[in-house]
Amino acid sequence: MEHTVTFTTEDHKTAIVTVPTNTMLADAAHSAGIDISQPCGGQGRCGRCAVQVTDGSVRRRSTLRLSPADVEQGYALACQTVVEGDVQIYVPPQEKIERRLTTDRVAAEVTVPADYDYDLVQSIRRIRLQLNPPTMEDQTDDWSRLQTAFRLQANIQNINCSLRLLQSMGETLRAGEWQVTAVIERDIDNPEKPIRLIELYPGNVDEYSPLWGCAVDIGTTTVSLWLVDLVSGQVRTQVAEYNAQIARGEDVISRIIFASKNGGCQEMRERVLGTINGLLDRACKRVKARPEEVMKVSVAGNSTMTHLLLGIPAGSIRLSPFVTAVNHPPLMTAREVGVGIHPDGTVDCLPGVASYVGADITAGVLSSGLEDAENVTLFIDVGTNGEIVLGERDWLVTCACSAGPAFEGAGVANGMRATQGAIEEVWISSETLEPTYRVIGGGKPKGICGSGLIALLAEAFLTGVLDKAGNVNVSAASSRVREGAHGGEYVIAWGAETESGEDIVITRVDVDNLLRAKAAIYAGFTVLASTVGIPLETVDKVLVGGSFGKYINVEKAVQIGLLPDMEWSRFEFLGNTSVKGTYYALLDWRKREQITEIAKRMTYIELSADNSFYEAFTSALFLPHTDLSKFPSVAEALQLNKAASARTT
Amino acid sequence: MEHTVTFTTEDHKTAIVTVPTNTMLADAAHSAGIDISQPCGGQGRCGRCAVQVTDGSVRRRSTLRLSPADVEQGYALACQTVVEGDVQIYVPPQEKIERRLTTDRVAAEVTVPADYDYDLVQSIRRIRLQLNPPTMEDQTDDWSRLQTAFRLQANIQNINCSLRLLQSMGETLRAGEWQVTAVIERDIDNPEKPIRLIELYPGNVDEYSPLWGCAVDIGTTTVSLWLVDLVSGQVRTQVAEYNAQIARGEDVISRIIFASKNGGCQEMRERVLGTINGLLDRACKRVKARPEEVMKVSVAGNSTMTHLLLGIPAGSIRLSPFVTAVNHPPLMTAREVGVGIHPDGTVDCLPGVASYVGADITAGVLSSGLEDAENVTLFIDVGTNGEIVLGERDWLVTCACSAGPAFEGAGVANGMRATQGAIEEVWISSETLEPTYRVIGGGKPKGICGSGLIALLAEAFLTGVLDKAGNVNVSAASSRVREGAHGGEYVIAWGAETESGEDIVITRVDVDNLLRAKAAIYAGFTVLASTVGIPLETVDKVLVGGSFGKYINVEKAVQIGLLPDMEWSRFEFLGNTSVKGTYYALLDWRKREQITEIAKRMTYIELSADNSFYEAFTSALFLPHTDLSKFPSVAEALQLNKAASARTT
Repeated sequence: MEHTVTFTTEDHKTAIVTVPTNTMLADAAHSAGIDISQPCGGQGRCGRCAVQVTDGSVRRRSTLRLSPADVEQGYALACQTVVEGDVQIYVPPQEKIERRLTTDRVAAEVTVPADYDYDLVQSIRRIRLQLNPPTMEDQTDDWSRLQTAFRLQANIQNINCSLRLLQSMGETLRAGEWQVTAVIERDIDNPEKPIRLIELYPGNVDEYSPLWGCAVDIGTTTVSLWLVDLVSGQVRTQVAEYNAQIARGEDVISRIIFASKNGGCQEMRERVLGTINGLLDRACKRVKARPEEVMKVSVAGNSTMTHLLLGIPAGSIRLSPFVTAVNHPPLMTAREVGVGIHPDGTVDCLPGVASYVGADITAGVLSSGLEDAENVTLFIDVGTNGEIVLGERDWLVTCACSAGPAFEGAGVANGMRATQGAIEEVWISSETLEPTYRVIGGGKPKGICGSGLIALLAEAFLTGVLDKAGNVNVSAASSRVREGAHGGEYVIAWGAETESGEDIVITRVDVDNLLRAKAAIYAGFTVLASTVGIPLETVDKVLVGGSFGKYINVEKAVQIGLLPDMEWSRFEFLGNTSVKGTYYALLDWRKREQITEIAKRMTYIELSADNSFYEAFTSALFLPHTDLSKFPSVAEALQLNKAASARTT
Repeated sequence: MEHTVTFTTEDHKTAIVTVPTNTMLADAAHSAGIDISQPCGGQGRCGRCAVQVTDGSVRRRSTLRLSPADVEQGYALACQTVVEGDVQIYVPPQEKIERRLTTDRVAAEVTVPADYDYDLVQSIRRIRLQLNPPTMEDQTDDWSRLQTAFRLQANIQNINCSLRLLQSMGETLRAGEWQVTAVIERDIDNPEKPIRLIELYPGNVDEYSPLWGCAVDIGTTTVSLWLVDLVSGQVRTQVAEYNAQIARGEDVISRIIFASKNGGCQEMRERVLGTINGLLDRACKRVKARPEEVMKVSVAGNSTMTHLLLGIPAGSIRLSPFVTAVNHPPLMTAREVGVGIHPDGTVDCLPGVASYVGADITAGVLSSGLEDAENVTLFIDVGTNGEIVLGERDWLVTCACSAGPAFEGAGVANGMRATQGAIEEVWISSETLEPTYRVIGGGKPKGICGSGLIALLAEAFLTGVLDKAGNVNVSAASSRVREGAHGGEYVIAWGAETESGEDIVITRVDVDNLLRAKAAIYAGFTVLASTVGIPLETVDKVLVGGSFGKYINVEKAVQIGLLPDMEWSRFEFLGNTSVKGTYYALLDWRKREQITEIAKRMTYIELSADNSFYEAFTSALFLPHTDLSKFPSVAEALQLNKAASARTT
C-alpha cells in the first residue's frame, strides 16, 4: 500500500512523497529531497535524526535517546520509524555546523625538501616536441608521427595513449603547427615500462609555468588538500573542509554500516568526492588555475576512507577477521575515481597496512621521520581512531585502538566539534570549584570540544570534583555539582550564559565515555611497548600527529592519563602528518617507494586478539591510571592541590 | 528570432520545435525527433532529403535535383534550406530499406584452423583459483590474497585489476567461499608484461563452457559479426546488418563530411555502435549468452570506419596529404569504446596501412593467404571503395581507388542496394533487344542493384544498345531505347510491371557513373602492376573479396572491363575476407601479429599523386577498354553477337 508523507521544515518548506507501507522515514525524507543528518549512520544511537510526527500513523522500532515525553509529543527517530499510513512530519532545525577549520585558516609551515629535483624524481613531466608535418611523400599517421618524435627527441621508446587523446590529437598537432607540449607520466623505477601520455597541448608551454599536483588527506572528520606546483615543489595553497560523510556517521564504524545499506556505498563515495572536488575548486581559484590542469593527486586516508572514496565495500573491515579489500590500490585515473582533476590525471592512493592502520599512518610515519629514528620513538595519531606506531630505524610495530569519537564531542551530552561556540579550555578553582573557560570565537558557549573535555577532566580530577574512578563528588560544597538524570554531573556553564539557555554539563556517563577513549589509547601503546619488550619510560620521543594534537594541552592530557608521563621536551606535536607525508610522496617517487616499504615493514598487532590489551585497558579506565606510580607528575600535582584546598577549608 | 517549425509525417504524426532564424531544416527535424535520411551526408547532392514546405517562409541555398515544378510545389532539400519564419513542413514517405543481408541468411563456411590451440595462442584465458580464507592470524587484504593465488597456482607474477573489480572482489571471493574463476588477458609475446584481470566469478566455472569473443567487420554499407567460442575456436553464429551510418552518407567521403559538422562525429559513432551492439544482442540471443559474457572483440574496418567507431575526427583522411589520425589503435576496453560486451573486455582494432587501405584489407590479405602466395597474386576488395593488393610471399604493394558507390546503386537513377525488389540479373536478346531479368524476392522490381547493373551494362554493350563509349544507340529498332531528359536511355521494365508504376531505365548519365567506377578499379590494378613492372597477364590468381564478389557474374564483369580478361579458373571469390581474417586474429595471437606485419610490409602507392593513373583511368572509361586487345574474350563475344544479329536482320 502507498502512503503520502508530507515533510515540513523549519523554514516552512513542504515536500511530499508517496511511499509503500514500512518505508523508513529517513528513506522517505531522502526521496523527498529532505536532508536529515545521521551521525551514527542510522543505527538509532545518536538521536540526532529526531523528527516530529504531527499527524498520521507510524511505527517506532526504537525510541532510544527519546524520553516518554518526547514520544508523547510525536517525536520519532527517522532512522528507526516506519510509515504505516499518510503522515505529516515536521523536521526540526538541524544543528548547523559552522566552519572553523584550522588548516584552512593557518597554512601549515612546509618547505620544499632541499633535495627536490623535478628532473630526477618527479613522475609527471612536461616535454616539448617539434614534429615534421606530413606530406604526400610522408603520409605517416598522426599517432605514429608523435611516437617517432618521442623516440627521437625525448628518448621515449614506448608510450601509451588514451582514446580521448587519440580523438583530439589531430586537431592539437595542427593547431600547434606540429609543435606540441606533452604531459606524461613515467615509472621512474621501471624505465622500460611504457610512459603514459596524459595531455597534449598545442605549441610550446613555458617550462617554468606551474605543473599542478595535489596532496589530499581524507580524515574521517576533515579533508585537507594541498595544491602543489610540481616544477618548483612549492605548496601554493592549503584548504580543508569537513568530510561530507559526517552527516551519515561520525566514526568509521557508523560509516561502514551506512555504506552497507542499499545505495549507501555510492552515497558515501559521492559525499567524499563532493568534498574533495569542492576543495579542489577552491584551491584552484586561489591560484587562478583550472582543476583540469591538475595532473596528479596523491591521497592518504584510513583504510575505510580509502575504500569509501573508491566505492569499495568496506564491510569486511568491521567484521572478524577484520580484513580490507585492498591495502595497496593500483594507480588509477581521475576519470575512474571521479576526482575533478584532469580526467587522465593519476590518482595515487597510498598504501595502508591493515583495516585500522591506513595510508594516513604510513604517510605520517614518513613525514614524522620515525622510520629513520636512531632511538625508540612512539608515534600517535589521535583522530576519530587512535593509531599508534612504535619503533626506530630497524623495526616498526603498529596497532589501532578504537578510541571512538568522544574527543571529537560525540557520545558526550554537550560535546561538539571544535567550531564556533565550543569551550576549548577550562580551569576549575580548587577553592570554590567555580570554572572559568575559553570559547572559540568568544561568544556564548554551545558545548565543549575535545581539548575542552580533556582540560575539564583534568581540572575536575585535580580539584576533587571527580574521583579517580570518574565519580562526581556530589557532596562537594558547590551548586556546580549535583545529581542529574544520569547520575552525578558538573555544571560548566549555567543556562543564563549559554547560547541555548540550557546548562552545559558533564555527566557521569560522559566521563565514562571519555575514560574509555583515553584508556583505549593508553592501553594501545602500553601493549605495543610490552609486545616488543620495551619499557614505556625508555621511549625517547613521543610524536603526536593529527590536528587534534595541535590544540591540546600536554600537561592536562598527561593528567587524565591519555599521554604517558614524561618530560615535556620529549613530546613533539607535528600537526597533520598524513597530508605532509602525502605531499612528499607526490613530489618524489623515491619517497613514494619509501611509503610502500614502510607499509611492508610495519608489523601489525591485532589488539582485539590480545588478552593483555583488555587488562591494560581496564587498568587505564581511571584518572590517570590504577597505578598512580606511572604518573609521578600527576601524583605531585594532586599533593599540591590537596594542600591548597586543605589550607582554604 | 525564434520560429516554430511544425513537421507532419506520412503517418500523420506531428512534431513541433522552436528554432532560431537560419536553422537548417535537417537540424530542426533532428531536434524534433524526425529522422530524415541524408545519404550524401547533407551536401545537397542526392536529393533524398526533399521535404515539402506547406506554409511559411524558408530560404533554399540550393535546389539541385529539384525541378522548377518541385520548387513551385514547395519542395526543398532539408540539408540546404533554412528557416526564416514559422513554417509547416510535410515529410514525405522515406524509402524504407528492407533487409536482405546475405551473410546473415547464409552463414559463411568457416572451419576452425587445424592448429588452433586455446592453451597456447589465445590471449583470453580462464583460470580457477582456490584461496585460503583469512583468519585472525592471516589478515592479508583480499587483493593481495588473490595475487598470491595467481602467483602460486598460475605462475602469474604480475596482474592488473580495474577499480570495478576491486569494488566487487570482496563479495565474489566470499560468495565462492574463496574459490574463484578468473578471466584474464595476457600478452603472449611479452610474458613479463602484467596480465590484465577482466572478470572474477565466484566458484568454479566449467572449463569446457564457452568463453566468448567476437569478430566484427565494419563495412561502409554492412556490418558483420561472428560470435566465437574461444575455447573450441568455433564460430557459433554469424549476423550482419546495414551500417546505421548509411542514413548520413552512402560513401566514406560523405560520412567524413557529415562527421566534421557539429555533433556529427558523435552521431556517427553512436550510429555504428548501435549497429554493432544490436548485432551483438541478436547473436547472443541465438546462443543463449549475455553480451557481457563476451570478453573480447576484434574489429576490422576501413580507416574511416575505424576512426568513426572510436569518435576520432576523420577530416584529415579526406584532405591532402591524406593522413589518418591513427593506423594502429592501441588495445582498448569495451567501456572506453562503448561496445556492449563485458565493460572490461578488450577491443582490438586491427591495424591499417593508410587513409584508404584499412584493417579490412590487412585482415583480408591474411585470410586470403596472399602474403604466403608463391606466385604473383592480385587481391581486389570491391566495396564502396576499391582496394587492391598485388604481391606474393616476398612483397606486397597496395593502392585504393575511389570507385564510389555506383555499384551499390548510388548515383544511378534507378539504382538501389541488393534488397527485396532489386533487379539482380539482366539478359538482353540480341535479336529483339527485349530484356529478361531476375528480381530479388521475386516480386515487382523497384530498381537495379550492383550485380544487375554490371549484367545490364555487359548485355547492352554486347547487343549494341550501348556503344563502346557508353552512348545509347537510340536509332536501334526497339521502343526500349529512347531519348530521355538526360540523353539516351534504355527501359528495362515498363511502368506497368514495376512497383512504383514508373519505368525502370538506365540513362546515359548512369552509364557514365558506372564507367567511372569500373575504370577507377581497373586503372588501379593496371597502375599497381606497372609500378612494380609486372605485366597484368602474368598474374597467377585474382582473389576477389567483399560480399559484392559473391554475386557478380565473372563473365559479365570482364565484359564491361571491371575485371581483367583471364581464364575463369584464375579467379577466386572469397566472400567477406575481412571478417574471416579478423576471426583468425581473434583466435590466435600469432595471426594477430601477422596482421601487424602485413600492415608494415605493404607498400602504399598514392594514386592521386601518380600521373599514369589518370591516363590508365581515361583509357578504361570505355566498354570494355580503349584497347580491345586486352580483352580477347570480349572481342570474341562481340563477333558472335554481331554474327547472330546479322543472321536475324
